[in-house]
Amino acid sequence: MTQSEALLIPPKPKAQAAPMKALVYHGPGRRSWEDKPRPVIREATDAVVRVTTATICGTDLHILKGDVPTVADGRILGHEGVGVVEETGSAVAGFERGDLVLISCITSCGKCDFCKKGMYSHCRSGGWNLGHTIDGTQAEYVRIPHAETSLYRLPRGADQEAFAMLSDIFPTGFECGVLNGQVKPGDTVAIVGAGPIGLATLLTAQFYSPAELVMVDLDANRLAVAGSLGATQLVEATGLKAVERVLELTAGAGVDVAVEAVGIPATFDVCQKIVAPGGRIANVGVHGKPVSLELERLWAHNVTLTTRLVDTVSTPMLMKLVQSGRLRPQKLVTHRFGLGDVMKAYDVFGNAAREQALKVVLKSQ
Amino acid sequence: MTQSEALLIPPKPKAQAAPMKALVYHGPGRRSWEDKPRPVIREATDAVVRVTTATICGTDLHILKGDVPTVADGRILGHEGVGVVEETGSAVAGFERGDLVLISCITSCGKCDFCKKGMYSHCRSGGWNLGHTIDGTQAEYVRIPHAETSLYRLPRGADQEAFAMLSDIFPTGFECGVLNGQVKPGDTVAIVGAGPIGLATLLTAQFYSPAELVMVDLDANRLAVAGSLGATQLVEATGLKAVERVLELTAGAGVDVAVEAVGIPATFDVCQKIVAPGGRIANVGVHGKPVSLELERLWAHNVTLTTRLVDTVSTPMLMKLVQSGRLRPQKLVTHRFGLGDVMKAYDVFGNAAREQALKVVLKSQ
Amino acid sequence: MTQSEALLIPPKPKAQAAPMKALVYHGPGRRSWEDKPRPVIREATDAVVRVTTATICGTDLHILKGDVPTVADGRILGHEGVGVVEETGSAVAGFERGDLVLISCITSCGKCDFCKKGMYSHCRSGGWNLGHTIDGTQAEYVRIPHAETSLYRLPRGADQEAFAMLSDIFPTGFECGVLNGQVKPGDTVAIVGAGPIGLATLLTAQFYSPAELVMVDLDANRLAVAGSLGATQLVEATGLKAVERVLELTAGAGVDVAVEAVGIPATFDVCQKIVAPGGRIANVGVHGKPVSLELERLWAHNVTLTTRLVDTVSTPMLMKLVQSGRLRPQKLVTHRFGLGDVMKAYDVFGNAAREQALKVVLKSQ
Amino acid sequence: MTQSEALLIPPKPKAQAAPMKALVYHGPGRRSWEDKPRPVIREATDAVVRVTTATICGTDLHILKGDVPTVADGRILGHEGVGVVEETGSAVAGFERGDLVLISCITSCGKCDFCKKGMYSHCRSGGWNLGHTIDGTQAEYVRIPHAETSLYRLPRGADQEAFAMLSDIFPTGFECGVLNGQVKPGDTVAIVGAGPIGLATLLTAQFYSPAELVMVDLDANRLAVAGSLGATQLVEATGLKAVERVLELTAGAGVDVAVEAVGIPATFDVCQKIVAPGGRIANVGVHGKPVSLELERLWAHNVTLTTRLVDTVSTPMLMKLVQSGRLRPQKLVTHRFGLGDVMKAYDVFGNAAREQALKVVLKSQ
Repeated sequence: MTQSEALLIPPKPKAQAAPMKALVYHGPGRRSWEDKPRPVIREATDAVVRVTTATICGTDLHILKGDVPTVADGRILGHEGVGVVEETGSAVAGFERGDLVLISCITSCGKCDFCKKGMYSHCRSGGWNLGHTIDGTQAEYVRIPHAETSLYRLPRGADQEAFAMLSDIFPTGFECGVLNGQVKPGDTVAIVGAGPIGLATLLTAQFYSPAELVMVDLDANRLAVAGSLGATQLVEATGLKAVERVLELTAGAGVDVAVEAVGIPATFDVCQKIVAPGGRIANVGVHGKPVSLELERLWAHNVTLTTRLVDTVSTPMLMKLVQSGRLRPQKLVTHRFGLGDVMKAYDVFGNAAREQALKVVLKSQ
Repeated sequence: MTQSEALLIPPKPKAQAAPMKALVYHGPGRRSWEDKPRPVIREATDAVVRVTTATICGTDLHILKGDVPTVADGRILGHEGVGVVEETGSAVAGFERGDLVLISCITSCGKCDFCKKGMYSHCRSGGWNLGHTIDGTQAEYVRIPHAETSLYRLPRGADQEAFAMLSDIFPTGFECGVLNGQVKPGDTVAIVGAGPIGLATLLTAQFYSPAELVMVDLDANRLAVAGSLGATQLVEATGLKAVERVLELTAGAGVDVAVEAVGIPATFDVCQKIVAPGGRIANVGVHGKPVSLELERLWAHNVTLTTRLVDTVSTPMLMKLVQSGRLRPQKLVTHRFGLGDVMKAYDVFGNAAREQALKVVLKSQ
Repeated sequence: MTQSEALLIPPKPKAQAAPMKALVYHGPGRRSWEDKPRPVIREATDAVVRVTTATICGTDLHILKGDVPTVADGRILGHEGVGVVEETGSAVAGFERGDLVLISCITSCGKCDFCKKGMYSHCRSGGWNLGHTIDGTQAEYVRIPHAETSLYRLPRGADQEAFAMLSDIFPTGFECGVLNGQVKPGDTVAIVGAGPIGLATLLTAQFYSPAELVMVDLDANRLAVAGSLGATQLVEATGLKAVERVLELTAGAGVDVAVEAVGIPATFDVCQKIVAPGGRIANVGVHGKPVSLELERLWAHNVTLTTRLVDTVSTPMLMKLVQSGRLRPQKLVTHRFGLGDVMKAYDVFGNAAREQALKVVLKSQ
Repeated sequence: MTQSEALLIPPKPKAQAAPMKALVYHGPGRRSWEDKPRPVIREATDAVVRVTTATICGTDLHILKGDVPTVADGRILGHEGVGVVEETGSAVAGFERGDLVLISCITSCGKCDFCKKGMYSHCRSGGWNLGHTIDGTQAEYVRIPHAETSLYRLPRGADQEAFAMLSDIFPTGFECGVLNGQVKPGDTVAIVGAGPIGLATLLTAQFYSPAELVMVDLDANRLAVAGSLGATQLVEATGLKAVERVLELTAGAGVDVAVEAVGIPATFDVCQKIVAPGGRIANVGVHGKPVSLELERLWAHNVTLTTRLVDTVSTPMLMKLVQSGRLRPQKLVTHRFGLGDVMKAYDVFGNAAREQALKVVLKSQ
């Protein structure tokens, strides 16, 4: 069937939008699991996906704290997940009903100047929309704009938990931390922050065989996890104490790459104080405030500092490494809930330290 | 035999060190043209060069203001120049007495880990030493350590003024501004600061054929010079006014590359406010204070910020382009003095705006 | 109007396809200017463009010699041109009737794995189709598949001749010759072959400020043109004679970049014999036979050899440089004909040496 | 004082050069273990090293076959090894008597244009000299020119076998195969030839986490070793049969990187027939004849073909990975002999298939 023939198929009658359940944001501190109308195709390039696996991101907690004012009351949250294509718009040639798909947290039109240079994060009609400026994946169904360039087909029977980790945190850790940090064989890399995103950075940094991987955090449990995932040095400290320890570990030289994976001035400061001349500071964290950059010292230090909203250009590569068994992102999943228990899942994830929670998975029945 | 043992080889008898004239720093605000002993070979890898052309750098003014405390009372200033080899240490195979040479502002041993990766600025036994931690080029003679890897032979009869510009400002503008800024054909580049270093950046940015070259400064004369040297847009403003103008010129998009060529928080701030998503901020300026980095906005902006003390790895390439006529660095020379008039030359250079001075050249008789 | 509303607009009744004139291939050595049905939209992603400026490519002559067996009898030739959008398919959001557009010689879907990595030449449903496997631009109208990602909007009143050069030869010279050859400031570059594609390489190589640009050809007129377009050395020779001359010019060192812009074993051989250790051989020519690669010598020579069917990823950048006046591709246009005189235009272009023809432009009335 | 004048400094009196034992080449097919004078310091930049661990390279067998006419009768063979510094020239500051050192197969002055750009293989006064144009390491003592930039200090007690593998084959496999092949995470890599160099490529390719590593050879034992060292697919075939198998394994797509690790036209041909569009062919093998390059097909295939004589720029990085335990090059050592049994060691290494020999180590008593 050609694309133009597809246009002739009469649309399914939509007498009345069927209801579904979804996790809805109602302003700072307020969320509920409630009825919402099922999404429908609006643009020819849309797809509607039935969500089978979703997860909660640290960003969702930021939203609930009111840190992301661009999220409106009534918005369905969630930008990660795996699902089954339910319906496709007339211009969607690459997917059909029944396909198992990975949903990218970044929507990309594939046509604008930013998309053409691989900067999907700044797509002129996409970017980070899901669970932000349009309804997201913590629901029974979700509408995906620019479906053909924003979904990835999975083999039937794929490990959905593993692939759901590729919606956001693995591309984020890899692109913002590892690629931007230019991690190379033999490097000494420090990752400041051992949360899910720091741990995803830790796992993907190993694609490039650094000699040393130093993990810095205050949470002993998370550091223990980091140790089991390949960190070669664990620094249970913060601030100048952490700086001192990292410099000791590197005989005063500092690190080739410092990854900021928290998003506050204090951890950024650790990074700028431990980076060696010629080194890179790769910012991954979502910041709410300016930081003080020590240019009076760093101007002569030959450093590179990068920032990045994930582009998800590396998703196909990450999928290959999951399929070949070289990457096992499901190692970060600590808790599982039915989608209907998403309210409880948020409680657990919101108390990550106490619950020893990393990634919390939501499965639909 | 170690290098220090090598020193035991009896030096040629030098009855008494001959005197010479030199520009000497005597603490903040104090300089004099006075007698100093002529430098002699100390290490087997040294050369002594008779200075035929020198120049004054903005950094020399910083030193005189007391901004560079690592410069001791009694130090001969100057890190730029061209001269004739007078004598070489026993391990110097590549040069001999009588060779006309370009003196690099950066001393490089060619053997340490930093030198091996092209980061001469951080050479374990070199870097920026001349006129800083050892005596410099504003004198009749200068001792150059690691001569074989820190001098460049010039053809007899070479235009000394042109090549003296390659000691520091042209490699600096090119490496710190253009290479680090990753200027590419078709780019829009803004250079904030139209002093000698900003203008060297302007000239070398054209090696990569940007579509637009926006020059930002408050000095109308310097902007006029910039216009004559290839700037396509001149912005006579600073601070938010300058930001506004640059954004207007780019239809709100911002610039691909913003080069900071002043070294103060205000001009850094212009750079971070005009850089487009995916763009680069290349710091060239020497900073004396920290700056506030707007990570709360830039974290998602996919920008790269670089700092660099010039490595002078590009010197051989720049020499080729001077020889082939594609680069004419002597365009920046506005004033010429005999070396003996260096005190007056400093007065002129220190009042650059009033004197409409860019580079001030000192010629020995 | 949204994309889905667009689907509701009744298609224009096409009782009978209107006729048009076109240059049609009828097997080796046979071409005619004849009536053909006007193209219509077949896929939702198509556009139909009224051709206002076309041109003839060396590849068209190859086709007429029978060298490209994938071109069938009855095919309308031509893969370069500028025109006005006549009609768009329902999924084409970025263009509308009346837009002046540049037609890329490469069709790109923007969605497949090759397109996502910028290798449009190998697009799974595109690539080089026009005037090859589907009807081309030497006609009054042409159908462009994947219009949104294969056309580029031009400002009204744009110099159509200049932009028509960006359909193929300028991206080809730039991507296959200059980018693949990694031309850098200060390099010595030799271009073997001073036809239109070699000259496009010559002009775009200057984006990177090489120190020397050596042009090698047997045609004195073309070399004279090369001299006027920036070549610094002209070598009127071929084979070992040319090798000898280039080595002389480089004091025996060879060139940093050797661009093969002809497509025969003899010129490839010149390239492999003049490239310096550490240099690049960038193949641009379309070859019909294998070549002998001197690996018994080159294995230790640290060279890089690249091949490429143009991807046209650089088209937006080239457009910027035309608009800013830094690139003037119209310099290669030597002859102009009305589209109706295309048969005569082929005669002239087919006798390029005698006619001193470079690019031959066809203008519709 | 020039270097040659430096030689006039009276050498320490060496009443008579002490004798030593060495493996000497006497023309094609002829080698003997015989007395030679102990090497002495000739240039101020030399060191003399007492060899404690050496090894035999495939290149030594080539020399014995008469394939390398630049090796003269009387030459001591060997370009790999570890030893203890016995004496240093006056200009050698970085090493002293008693230091344990890794000897690089490539001698680098650190000062010439090639060394400055990291192309030590083409050093103006170095390159591959040892066991080639000057006496080599299969002896009790060896003179190392440019010692400071050609030796690497090892920690006391280092595993000499492991580090001796870094003299040549590991940098060769890594630089010529992996770096030049631009192996990236997720890539499919085929290595044609499972000898020591192919296996070193196999181990170092894993620094970049390819998804598939296909090993092609005819020797079942070597393929079994490859399987144990990380190859994911083993192809026991050659020529078109091997091509067919590799294409099957990649569903017809071909490989991202094809490494030629043999050095004959047949294996090169396999590489050019299995490389995917956009892929890289990295030549590692030492070739004695030209090859036929299928440009009539590959011109449009967007491939990159590289050649390289190892530069050993990666030696410091490889040392770090050996020290951190991430690389275990000693896995390739299959046989050990006393240095005095080097004649027998050659017999075994010369019958590698029958003896199941990979690297053969020679230890001094």
